[in-house]
Amino acid sequence: MNVTLQELAEALGADVDGDAQARAQGVCPPHAPMAGHVVFLDKPGQAEMLKGAGVAAVLCSRTADITGFNLLRAEYPKLAFARALAFFNPTPKPAPGAHARACVHPEAVVHAQASIGACAVVEQGAHVGPGTVMHAGVYVGPNAHIGENCTLHPNSTVLQNCVLGDRVTLHSGAVIGADGFGYVLHQGEHVKVPQVGRVVIGSDVEIGAGTTVDRATLGDTVIGDGAKIDNQVQIGHNCRIGRGVIICGSVGISGSCTIGDYAVLAGQAGVSDHITIGARAIIGGKAGVTRDVPEGKFYSGMPAGPHRDAMRQAGALQKLPDLLKDLDALRKQVELLNKDEA
Amino acid sequence: MNVTLQELAEALGADVDGDAQARAQGVCPPHAPMAGHVVFLDKPGQAEMLKGAGVAAVLCSRTADITGFNLLRAEYPKLAFARALAFFNPTPKPAPGAHARACVHPEAVVHAQASIGACAVVEQGAHVGPGTVMHAGVYVGPNAHIGENCTLHPNSTVLQNCVLGDRVTLHSGAVIGADGFGYVLHQGEHVKVPQVGRVVIGSDVEIGAGTTVDRATLGDTVIGDGAKIDNQVQIGHNCRIGRGVIICGSVGISGSCTIGDYAVLAGQAGVSDHITIGARAIIGGKAGVTRDVPEGKFYSGMPAGPHRDAMRQAGALQKLPDLLKDLDALRKQVELLNKDEA
Amino acid sequence: MNVTLQELAEALGADVDGDAQARAQGVCPPHAPMAGHVVFLDKPGQAEMLKGAGVAAVLCSRTADITGFNLLRAEYPKLAFARALAFFNPTPKPAPGAHARACVHPEAVVHAQASIGACAVVEQGAHVGPGTVMHAGVYVGPNAHIGENCTLHPNSTVLQNCVLGDRVTLHSGAVIGADGFGYVLHQGEHVKVPQVGRVVIGSDVEIGAGTTVDRATLGDTVIGDGAKIDNQVQIGHNCRIGRGVIICGSVGISGSCTIGDYAVLAGQAGVSDHITIGARAIIGGKAGVTRDVPEGKFYSGMPAGPHRDAMRQAGALQKLPDLLKDLDALRKQVELLNKDEA
Repeated sequence: MNVTLQELAEALGADVDGDAQARAQGVCPPHAPMAGHVVFLDKPGQAEMLKGAGVAAVLCSRTADITGFNLLRAEYPKLAFARALAFFNPTPKPAPGAHARACVHPEAVVHAQASIGACAVVEQGAHVGPGTVMHAGVYVGPNAHIGENCTLHPNSTVLQNCVLGDRVTLHSGAVIGADGFGYVLHQGEHVKVPQVGRVVIGSDVEIGAGTTVDRATLGDTVIGDGAKIDNQVQIGHNCRIGRGVIICGSVGISGSCTIGDYAVLAGQAGVSDHITIGARAIIGGKAGVTRDVPEGKFYSGMPAGPHRDAMRQAGALQKLPDLLKDLDALRKQVELLNKDEA
Repeated sequence: MNVTLQELAEALGADVDGDAQARAQGVCPPHAPMAGHVVFLDKPGQAEMLKGAGVAAVLCSRTADITGFNLLRAEYPKLAFARALAFFNPTPKPAPGAHARACVHPEAVVHAQASIGACAVVEQGAHVGPGTVMHAGVYVGPNAHIGENCTLHPNSTVLQNCVLGDRVTLHSGAVIGADGFGYVLHQGEHVKVPQVGRVVIGSDVEIGAGTTVDRATLGDTVIGDGAKIDNQVQIGHNCRIGRGVIICGSVGISGSCTIGDYAVLAGQAGVSDHITIGARAIIGGKAGVTRDVPEGKFYSGMPAGPHRDAMRQAGALQKLPDLLKDLDALRKQVELLNKDEA
Repeated sequence: MNVTLQELAEALGADVDGDAQARAQGVCPPHAPMAGHVVFLDKPGQAEMLKGAGVAAVLCSRTADITGFNLLRAEYPKLAFARALAFFNPTPKPAPGAHARACVHPEAVVHAQASIGACAVVEQGAHVGPGTVMHAGVYVGPNAHIGENCTLHPNSTVLQNCVLGDRVTLHSGAVIGADGFGYVLHQGEHVKVPQVGRVVIGSDVEIGAGTTVDRATLGDTVIGDGAKIDNQVQIGHNCRIGRGVIICGSVGISGSCTIGDYAVLAGQAGVSDHITIGARAIIGGKAGVTRDVPEGKFYSGMPAGPHRDAMRQAGALQKLPDLLKDLDALRKQVELLNKDEA
C-alpha cells in the first residue's frame, strides 16, 4: 500500500501539517525508522532518532513541538496510530467454507460465510456465525454457539454449550468451558461436583493465549462485552466479569467473583473466591485480593489494601531493619535513665 | 428427566420432608430459581429468594429450619447436591470406536470400547483402555498407557511412556510429560540434561485445563490416586504428589518436591525445589514455600511460615508506618530526658 | 545398548577407575539403583544407597572419595551425566516426510528431510528446514520460518511470520506469536492496537509447555540464542530476551522489557513493563521487578530490591509483632520517667 499523506490523514482522523502529497507505505517504530514510513511519537524528544531516515511523516498530537518533518496531527494520536497499523496491515481473511480436512458434524450449523480451517472440529449441534474464522486445530464442542465475525486462532478450544458473542477473538491455546474446580470430601474421597453450567462471552471480547475460563457449576460464567483478557489468565467457575474489564497476564481469579465494569487487574494479581471488585477499580500487579474492593479504588499488596497504605507499608518495611537497631539503642538509654533515677 | 421426589431422594441418599409425589426435572441455583427444579441451600436464609418460583424441592441438611417448601433432607447435603447434578445431567458418552479422521497407529492397542475423536492421534505402542474417551485433537504418545474409563478432553496431550490410571480426567490444554527443566552450564552453554523418565498418574485423578506435569529426569514424576489439580498448575520433574492432594489454580511446584497425602495448596502458591510438604498440610494462596512444612500445618506468606505468624506479621506491618512516627516521638522524649539529666 | 566402561568413558569424557571391561546398559538414579546401570553421585555419601545393587559404575568427580565401586571420574561430572543420559537414551526421530494426515499448503516450503506429523498444519509461505520434526497437531502459520533440526512437540503453535533459528525446541502447548496486549481506551471502548510485528527466536532455544511469547506491535519480540524458558512463562510484546537467559516456570514478563545475557529469573517472578534487567542478574522466586536491575545483581522481594536487603527486611518483619510490644513497654517507661521528672 502506498498513499498520500492526505489520503492517510483522512483515514486516521488526522490533519497534515506539511506536504500533503508526500507518500507513505507503512508504519515503523521510532527506534528503527524507515524511509517512506510513518512514525508515531508520544514524546516529541524522540524526533531526534528520526533524523536522516527519510520517514514519510510523524504522527503526533495537535500541539507537539516537532519540526523538520511532515506531521500528521491528531486529536487522539494513539488512536490514530492504532488506525494506521490497521490501515497498512489489513488482516488477511481465509476464504469462506470448510477446509477439506476440517471435521464439521452434519448436525452442526456453520454459516456459508464462515471459514473452518484444517483439522478444526465442529461438533453436533454447534453453531458458527457468518464471517467467523476458525483456524486450524480449533475445537468447538456440542451445542456451542459462536457469533459473527469471531476469530478463533489455531488450537483454541470452546467446549460444549458455551456461547461467544460477535467479534470475539480467542488466541491459541485458550480454553473456554473446562470444568470448574468443585469437590465434596466424603469419607476420604473427593467426590466431583458436576459442572453443568456454561461460559457466556459477550461481544468484542479478546481472550489471550493459554487463558482458561471455567464453566459454571450451574448457570453461567459471564464475560461482559468489550472485556480484554491477556495470556495465561485463569478465571474460575461462576465468575461475572463486567463490561470493558482489562485483565493482564497470569492473573488468577477464583470462583464466584464479580469484577465490575472497566476494572483493571494488573499482571499476576490473584483474587480469592466470592470477592466483589467494584467498577473502575484498579488492582496492582501481584496483589492478592482477599476482601471486596470498592468502586474506583486502587488496591495493591498481599493481602491487598488501598494502594497508598500498601506503599507506605512497603516504604516503612525498608526502614525496619535500621529501626530495630534504633529501638535497641533507645531501650538501653531508657534503662540507663531508669537506673540513674533509681 | 422427570422424577418424583421419592425417586430422587433414593438416588441421592436423602429423605423427603413434604410431598413425595411432587415431580422434579432438574437442579437450579438459588439466585435463579426455576419451577420444577431442585435447589440446594447451605444457608437456610436463602430460602427467601425462592418464594413464588415454584421450585420442586429444597435440598438441605437434616436439621435446616426451612418451611414452605418440599424438602429433601440429607445427612451430607453437599454430597447429595453433587449427586443431583450428576443425576439430572448425565455426561453424554460418544460411541466406542475411532472417528474416521482419528489417527491410530497400527501398532497401538486401543480397546474396542474406547472412543477416539476426530484428529486425535495415538502413537505406536500406546495403549488405551476400555471406556476411555479421547476427544478431538488429543495426542497420546508412543508407549503411553491410558487406563479404563478415562476422559481426555479436546486438545490435551500425553507424551511418550507416560501412564494414566483409571477414571483419570485431563482437561483441554493439559500437557503430561513435557521435559523437565534441567541444564548444565558448561563453557557459556546450557547443555540439556535429557529427561528420560516418565509421569505416572494414579486413578481418579483430575488435571485442569492448561496444567503441565513434567516427566522425571530419571524414574517417575508421580501423581497419587484421587489427587485433584486445577487449571494452569505447573508441576516440575521428579515431584511426588500424594493421594487426594488438592492443588488450586496457577500453583507452581518446582522439581523434586514431595507433597503429602491430602495436602491442600491454594491458588498461586509456589514451592521451591526439593521441598517436602507434610500430609494434610495447608498452603495459603500466593504463599512461597521455601522450607519443609510439617504434617497438618497451615503455612502462608512469602517466605511461608506458620499462618498465625504470617497473619501477626501482616497485621503488625499495617501498623508500622505509624509506629515509625511513634518511635520518632519517643526518641525525642528520651533525648530531652537525657539532656535534663545532664 | 550395552557397552564397556572403557567405551562409555570415552563417550562421556571420563576416565575409568576400576574394571574398564565391566559392562553398562543404562543410567539409574541413586535412590533406585539397578544392576548393570551407571549412577551419578554429586554427594559421595550417597554411595551407601548403592550397596549390593550391582551397579556397573558410579559417575563422580575426579576427587570424590568413593570406594567399593567401579568409578567413572570426570572433570565435569554433571556434564558427563547429561551425556550418559543422551548416550543410553537416543531420541527416536520419526522418518522424514509428511504424514498422510498432515496438511501442508502447496505454497509452503518443507525440506525433504523434515518430518511433519499427523494433523500438523503448515500454512502458505511457511518454511520448515531440514532435520526439523513437527509432531502431531503442530501449527505453523503463514510465512513463518522454522530452521534446521528443530523439534516442535505435539500441539505447539507458531503463528504467522514468526522465525525460529536452528535446534529450537517448543514443548506442547507453547504459543509463539499471539497478539501482544495493546488497546487505546476511546470513548468507553478499548480499541485494539494491531500487533503487526513478529517473534524472532535464535538458535538452541528451548521453550516450555504452555509458554506464550507475544509478537511485537511493530518490529520484533526477540529471544536470544541459547535461552532456556520453562513451562507456563508469559513474555509480552516487544521484549528482548538475551543470549543464554534462564527463565523458570510461571514467570511473567510484561511488554517492552530487556533481559540481559545469562540473567536468571526464578519461578513465578514478575517484571513490569519497560524494565531492563542487566546481564547475569538473578531475580528471586516470586519477586516483583518494578525498576531496572543492574548487571550481575541478585534482586528479590516485592517490590524487588537487592536480595540482602530483602532478606534483612523479611527477617525484621518476623520480629515486628514482638517489637510492637517492646515499644509499648518502652513508651510506658518513658512516660513514667517524664512523670517522675515533672
